[in-house]
Amino acid sequence: MQVINYLLGYKNLKIYQDTDMFNFSLDSVLLPNFITLNKKVKNILDIGTGNAPIPLILSTKTEAKIIGVEIQKEVSLLAKKSVKLNKLEKQIEIITGDINEIAQTLPKNHFDIITSNPPFFELNENSHLNDKEYKTLARHEVTLNINELCQIAKSLLKNGGTLALVHRPERLLDILKVMRENNIEPKKIKFVHPKKNKNANIVLIEGVLNGKKGLKVTSPLISHKANGEYTDEIKKYFE
Amino acid sequence: MQVINYLLGYKNLKIYQDTDMFNFSLDSVLLPNFITLNKKVKNILDIGTGNAPIPLILSTKTEAKIIGVEIQKEVSLLAKKSVKLNKLEKQIEIITGDINEIAQTLPKNHFDIITSNPPFFELNENSHLNDKEYKTLARHEVTLNINELCQIAKSLLKNGGTLALVHRPERLLDILKVMRENNIEPKKIKFVHPKKNKNANIVLIEGVLNGKKGLKVTSPLISHKANGEYTDEIKKYFE
Repeated sequence: MQVINYLLGYKNLKIYQDTDMFNFSLDSVLLPNFITLNKKVKNILDIGTGNAPIPLILSTKTEAKIIGVEIQKEVSLLAKKSVKLNKLEKQIEIITGDINEIAQTLPKNHFDIITSNPPFFELNENSHLNDKEYKTLARHEVTLNINELCQIAKSLLKNGGTLALVHRPERLLDILKVMRENNIEPKKIKFVHPKKNKNANIVLIEGVLNGKKGLKVTSPLISHKANGEYTDEIKKYFE
Repeated sequence: MQVINYLLGYKNLKIYQDTDMFNFSLDSVLLPNFITLNKKVKNILDIGTGNAPIPLILSTKTEAKIIGVEIQKEVSLLAKKSVKLNKLEKQIEIITGDINEIAQTLPKNHFDIITSNPPFFELNENSHLNDKEYKTLARHEVTLNINELCQIAKSLLKNGGTLALVHRPERLLDILKVMRENNIEPKKIKFVHPKKNKNANIVLIEGVLNGKKGLKVTSPLISHKANGEYTDEIKKYFE
């Protein structure tokens, strides 16, 4: 069933969701609030854009041109509908296709920022693949793994451009390694903990192409209070 | 001037300090409170033990035999005096010497845990070396770098044994890389932030020799309140 939701924290934004597919998650709200934006940022690419929560939120924070690429046709149609509904066709372009192929057609050394909320799980024989193909592709590295993502970022980012990812802490070591192998120097990391006394369950990472060494681990974000409610820090994103 | 201080949080422990050298730091209190201890732990090695705060605090938490190695004679003499003062000669042995040499004389594949609060700064031409040699050796990688430390740990740890370090987040990527190069898999990380809204300034890391992949980033520790006082979490270590 297709429904229109108001996008968390951005009262003027509306987003098409399909309850049979999947809804945008907290991850997609955290990433655009984490990345370093300034007026020099002219071109942004969001890889695996889903129903476009990241481009939609970014449109409230920057005037940069934003391209979102989504492999699943049905999901990308929702993204296109949302862009139109919000009258953002001039700022946001949604491309349907596999980023491994689309990347060949995009300009090299062009983007100031590449964002992605990529599949989280390594694909292996123990992977519990979800029955719904939509969720499988979005969650498992079937069509895109971290290494491919970093290679694409290396080729499409400007020198000094930023790759910003939201991921799971269990995969952090792999991500840091692969970023560095592709000359993307991790510069800023933020951990999100579901409660104050719990292990992190989300990590946000920014790396800079050909950046200098010097990692900052910024203040932690706690997503829920002891009673299960969102914390004030998270509520900020809703209001 | 030599003074005796009560060791933070451990009312029965006393520690000799020399105000002309350096005092033990919060780092040395955090590490023994971070590491995973159980009854199977029989042998612990503390590399660069200084005036032995880590062995002294560990003695309140485990019955394991603890060896502390310190290169600076004057500092190691303080360590030995503190061990004697606390009547811990049976549990704690202090060895004076360079761990690069001492390691040759210690049993291989023997230790359950190796701890270290090592020099933090890479030595390079821009290093602002401290005038006092004591502080220089303790702070800069003059006599021991992370790579040497991990190589020593690899040779002296039991299979499945733990290397636990306290360090600076700026060096995290190097540390993770070097640990993995020495088959020490990073398993547990905790960040310490000086205030709730500040970047981390201390990182605690546990890696396991030949351990399986699977990193946990445990709940963050905030060391100070907005008014500059220690937080309750830190005060626990004092009381």
